[in-house]
Amino acid sequence: MLNLELAERLLKGDKRACARLISLVENEDKEAVDILKKLYKHTGNAHIIGITGPPGGGKSTLTDKLAKMLRKEGKKIGIIAVDPTSPFTGGSILGDRVRMSDLTTDPGVFIRSMGTRGHLGGLSKGTQSAIKVLDIYGADYIFVETVGVGQSEVDIVKTADTVVMVMVPGLGDDIQAIKAGVMEIGDIFVVNKSDLEGADRTALEIEMMLDFKKHNGWRPPVIKASATEKTGIDNIIEKIKNHKNHMVKTGQFHIRREENIKLEILNLVKEKLMTMIAKKSNDSNEIDSLYKDVLEKRLDPYTARDKIIDLVKK
Amino acid sequence: MLNLELAERLLKGDKRACARLISLVENEDKEAVDILKKLYKHTGNAHIIGITGPPGGGKSTLTDKLAKMLRKEGKKIGIIAVDPTSPFTGGSILGDRVRMSDLTTDPGVFIRSMGTRGHLGGLSKGTQSAIKVLDIYGADYIFVETVGVGQSEVDIVKTADTVVMVMVPGLGDDIQAIKAGVMEIGDIFVVNKSDLEGADRTALEIEMMLDFKKHNGWRPPVIKASATEKTGIDNIIEKIKNHKNHMVKTGQFHIRREENIKLEILNLVKEKLMTMIAKKSNDSNEIDSLYKDVLEKRLDPYTARDKIIDLVKK
Repeated sequence: MLNLELAERLLKGDKRACARLISLVENEDKEAVDILKKLYKHTGNAHIIGITGPPGGGKSTLTDKLAKMLRKEGKKIGIIAVDPTSPFTGGSILGDRVRMSDLTTDPGVFIRSMGTRGHLGGLSKGTQSAIKVLDIYGADYIFVETVGVGQSEVDIVKTADTVVMVMVPGLGDDIQAIKAGVMEIGDIFVVNKSDLEGADRTALEIEMMLDFKKHNGWRPPVIKASATEKTGIDNIIEKIKNHKNHMVKTGQFHIRREENIKLEILNLVKEKLMTMIAKKSNDSNEIDSLYKDVLEKRLDPYTARDKIIDLVKK
Repeated sequence: MLNLELAERLLKGDKRACARLISLVENEDKEAVDILKKLYKHTGNAHIIGITGPPGGGKSTLTDKLAKMLRKEGKKIGIIAVDPTSPFTGGSILGDRVRMSDLTTDPGVFIRSMGTRGHLGGLSKGTQSAIKVLDIYGADYIFVETVGVGQSEVDIVKTADTVVMVMVPGLGDDIQAIKAGVMEIGDIFVVNKSDLEGADRTALEIEMMLDFKKHNGWRPPVIKASATEKTGIDNIIEKIKNHKNHMVKTGQFHIRREENIKLEILNLVKEKLMTMIAKKSNDSNEIDSLYKDVLEKRLDPYTARDKIIDLVKK
């Protein structure tokens, strides 16, 4: 009953219902998942924008500025900041994104920090669900902020319709190398903090890298901006909109969503299977004794794997 | 027959057999896995050392120097450099670690770059297998170099007996924050490039962070070093040995290996299950039509998940 009310309030765009549901889903509440199942048909309207790039790029400030400008158009905004959780303490690393933003009191903006929870493949579930909740809530734009580099971030970005890659002038060689590696996922490049020395050079380097890439009708624009000076923000918004229009017009939007959904479902499958194994581990010591056999060299890990899969199939 | 010969050559410490087997396992060759199954009882002798930290820390040079010093004691060394693969081109990001090292021609040193292959949870298999091959090959020390930050790297480090966290003076605030997050996995801290300004301050900051941590009998030492100037290397080696002695004496070594084996087997399970699903996807269009149903909102992702799990169980 309570949950039915929660569903209705969410559909009406209630910010508190939104917060509540995201928390419930994060805590793997079964009824909350049931609500998401029921309301799933109301998703798909928001434009999902991934904001990523190396640490120190000023992504949060930039996202805030983009959100503010879109608010002037009367758009509803969701912001999800994916915060790499310490895999050991479970604590947040980058601090409370909500507290850091002055958009918190705006009724048309919903901001949430989400930890990655430090377990393999487990990071997408919470984020994916939060995106859905915000989509049902009625957000026109959902920003998903991640700290670049790791595989997990790349995967989160794969859930986005448009990826904004935020660079800064003058990073070290190693970081530039990694940058090159995630280069391919950018639909729009922003050289942020462009008042710093070397901004033109960084922009040029990005353009040169883009010269070597196939573009499928959309060559990613490279925009110099400064979130603190508020320059370039309108240009980024324009390009974000252009990108979606281009994607929709060419049919790539649909293809990308299809790929992303596939990935999402496979992640859900993986998580569920791992939960099933954890449960079996708790219920009997069959799996634990397999671990012990491997540790003591009576069994090899590959055979142990096959035995566990047989248990899952039962 | 050929493979039996390969197994025998590996047991005798043949470097080329080692290279061949790692490649075969990387390509998921079934017979190579069978060799590993058979020889598994010969593993467990090497001291596995994870070398990690933020990009730009000079980890490769440091590892080379550590390896060289251990070679003077007549030890056999394996080095695995985990290279974050571009998730899109599949190409290596950091370049060929083997080519970068002057240890390549040393018959007692085996070096291998390994890509992370860009798929979720898939990165450990190759590395884990390579560690096993090097262990059977007779390596006394196996160094696993990773670029810090991402979840994947944390997981690789979880396969190590001793984790050396390599920091450098004067990184930006954001990077320092991430550093704090992976802080807990260090058994030994190295402030590398300690000839740079700010080395004392960085060392002090690490010590202060360590003050807030529980230590279970081993307070991680903080060592100032310079791999290029060759200072601090002997100190790091000493601490690496001390750490293992401490772990063995207190029984923590066994506990850690047990945890690592558990994690490894679960990763193998996950990979195998995902391979099974991919195969089912290829064999019929049952799974593909589930994806399509979700895309077109006839089905929600959670129900699709459950249907795929039912298919796996068949």
